[in-house]
Amino acid sequence: MSRAVLLRNVRPLGGPATDVAIVDGRFAATASPEADIIDGQGLLMLPGLVEAHTHLDKNLFGMKWYRNEIGPRRIDRIETDRREKKRLGIDPARQSMRQAVATLALGVTAIRTHVDVDTEIGVANVAGVLETREKLAGWVDIQIVAFPQSGMLIRPGTQELMEEALRLGADIVGGIDPASIDRDPVAHLDAVFAMAQSHGKPIDLHLHEPGELGAFCLELIVERTRALGMQGRVMVDHAYCLGMLEAATLDTLAASLADAGVAVMTAGPPGRPAPAVKRLREAGVVVCGGSDGPRGTWEPYGRGDMLQRATMIGQRNGFTRDEDLELALDVCTVQGARALGLAGYGLAEGCVADLVLVDAETAAEAVAAPPPRRVVVKAGRVVARDGETIGIAAP
Amino acid sequence: MSRAVLLRNVRPLGGPATDVAIVDGRFAATASPEADIIDGQGLLMLPGLVEAHTHLDKNLFGMKWYRNEIGPRRIDRIETDRREKKRLGIDPARQSMRQAVATLALGVTAIRTHVDVDTEIGVANVAGVLETREKLAGWVDIQIVAFPQSGMLIRPGTQELMEEALRLGADIVGGIDPASIDRDPVAHLDAVFAMAQSHGKPIDLHLHEPGELGAFCLELIVERTRALGMQGRVMVDHAYCLGMLEAATLDTLAASLADAGVAVMTAGPPGRPAPAVKRLREAGVVVCGGSDGPRGTWEPYGRGDMLQRATMIGQRNGFTRDEDLELALDVCTVQGARALGLAGYGLAEGCVADLVLVDAETAAEAVAAPPPRRVVVKAGRVVARDGETIGIAAP
Repeated sequence: MSRAVLLRNVRPLGGPATDVAIVDGRFAATASPEADIIDGQGLLMLPGLVEAHTHLDKNLFGMKWYRNEIGPRRIDRIETDRREKKRLGIDPARQSMRQAVATLALGVTAIRTHVDVDTEIGVANVAGVLETREKLAGWVDIQIVAFPQSGMLIRPGTQELMEEALRLGADIVGGIDPASIDRDPVAHLDAVFAMAQSHGKPIDLHLHEPGELGAFCLELIVERTRALGMQGRVMVDHAYCLGMLEAATLDTLAASLADAGVAVMTAGPPGRPAPAVKRLREAGVVVCGGSDGPRGTWEPYGRGDMLQRATMIGQRNGFTRDEDLELALDVCTVQGARALGLAGYGLAEGCVADLVLVDAETAAEAVAAPPPRRVVVKAGRVVARDGETIGIAAP
Repeated sequence: MSRAVLLRNVRPLGGPATDVAIVDGRFAATASPEADIIDGQGLLMLPGLVEAHTHLDKNLFGMKWYRNEIGPRRIDRIETDRREKKRLGIDPARQSMRQAVATLALGVTAIRTHVDVDTEIGVANVAGVLETREKLAGWVDIQIVAFPQSGMLIRPGTQELMEEALRLGADIVGGIDPASIDRDPVAHLDAVFAMAQSHGKPIDLHLHEPGELGAFCLELIVERTRALGMQGRVMVDHAYCLGMLEAATLDTLAASLADAGVAVMTAGPPGRPAPAVKRLREAGVVVCGGSDGPRGTWEPYGRGDMLQRATMIGQRNGFTRDEDLELALDVCTVQGARALGLAGYGLAEGCVADLVLVDAETAAEAVAAPPPRRVVVKAGRVVARDGETIGIAAP
């Protein structure tokens, strides 16, 4: 399929209707004479949606409904997760393909996924998602975090498996709850940062620690990021603590995160404390969005729709003004791209032509009530129309 | 159109596939020989969704996108609301018709709407919604609350207009924030209960008062409900305070609400404290759900989808287990019908045949990721298919 396209009559981010040229998969000033012409019908054009945090390896897309009877503690879920992965036959290659293709149809053109590494499954899940990444090269950008879901220090052998995952092709060193899961925040973070240093990889840490405990862990992360010169290469996920602190403490911490270039990922969780997105952005922190685990054993909700996630982030933050809804969208697009370090992201000339067309008057309207995705374009190629992918299918 | 129907191959609430007979608009033991046959294709059958709290008179469905630049206080919104209603030409008859028809296509077969009554518009909005109720008789059940949005005691003349609204056909006496808006909780509640008594009408009160202030207002409501024998005829909306109290205080208050038959309505607000649904239900309180103000000047979000509202209520309450997702659905169906006092509601033989068919394996799945509404039936008549109403249209 040609990567020279002329999109007629689209409205970038709700601006005036215009024609948009794409040459060699990138936005261009003038159209190629051989360009395929697409009638944009005056639709709203958004940049490709960025999924900054999910778990491609263990969703249940396309599988029988899983009756969730799991207890309320995080450890109940971790243990169920390890057990059910085997019992249900959750194949990481198949399932990652299913979720990535399904969300591509929803306009998600880039994904960072945490992939379980533990002493039971070893690096099998990483291998499965690597397979999907290869199949989807050119269709969806996929970054893989080697993720010690079951704990790292508390399960000897896990660090070695994470190193193996990095050698296999994982891009990022993961971590999880340095205090509440791994029971030693300093040792956990030292180990994670050491691994990142020795492999030359960025870091992406799950951090559910609440309140002041979470704030302390963030301080430890900031200190190590600065000391090792890893500014711009560290992300912290969920960070519920950033929704639980006194205003002055939060402001101080936000300034540190901004200064150290530590990004924050939020799912806009309706039932949990959540990072105050606007305040963090005003302080200069990069804040991105993720759908975490749609249709899995952890949570049953959703389909990995990152426009719906912008809605949730807006609602969780009490946003009602248009400029704030636009901020929620920014979190799930531009900020996500910054956090993931995506090269050439955006709607400007020269950027990679990843885009979504929807029937909405303004970007705020698209966030307020996400409309169906009419057209999805990845690097200049039409990859989905009206919810169906074209040229690529899930198993 | 015939009200004798045989629904073949449907799965009520996710149970085994069965045929369901409808005679004279009600579920029956055996089908009429003249029944229209509908192929249910093994779809999941849910009872009609119940919208227990919305504002049909002032949405912006089908109107140009409204750029929201409103300040953060409730009074900013109330004042904007009064001003924009005129400036934008929000016609209550037209807009109530638009929202009711749009949500019928989403499976909402019964609605309780608060309708503004104030010294500027008088009872014009009530008259407009009464017109819609008449047009939609047999299509959607609509209950009208005479609602003093701008305050009651603080705006002299409002009470008289509310009485006029009741004489015109409003069903329920409304009220709003006895302390923070009307500045005198005892006087406000005494006036509301007196009006309800003299007109023989139920009561439905907006209560945003936080924490202990809200708890005190609830105590005043419970005292008056008991003293006047109005058990089962009083509802309190939002009741953020029920998400802000210490556990023991909440338990005591929940027992009082249950004993006095005072129902609680929640929208499952992601950015606000919210009533703890499961705890209230365990205490015996009727808890129903509402979408409040979809696409309006107050909030830009949503389309009035009550299945999506069940999702939000589930997420806000941290529900992940199937039985809890089923509870969220119950809130938006059976409990809503109880709170509204709908006669003959349910899927049992003899009940009015209000139902929705969706492509989902279980009720929990329908809550986790709301699927499109394939068929909507109101009192035995197919009123919508695949998102489009049949035989009735919005202006």
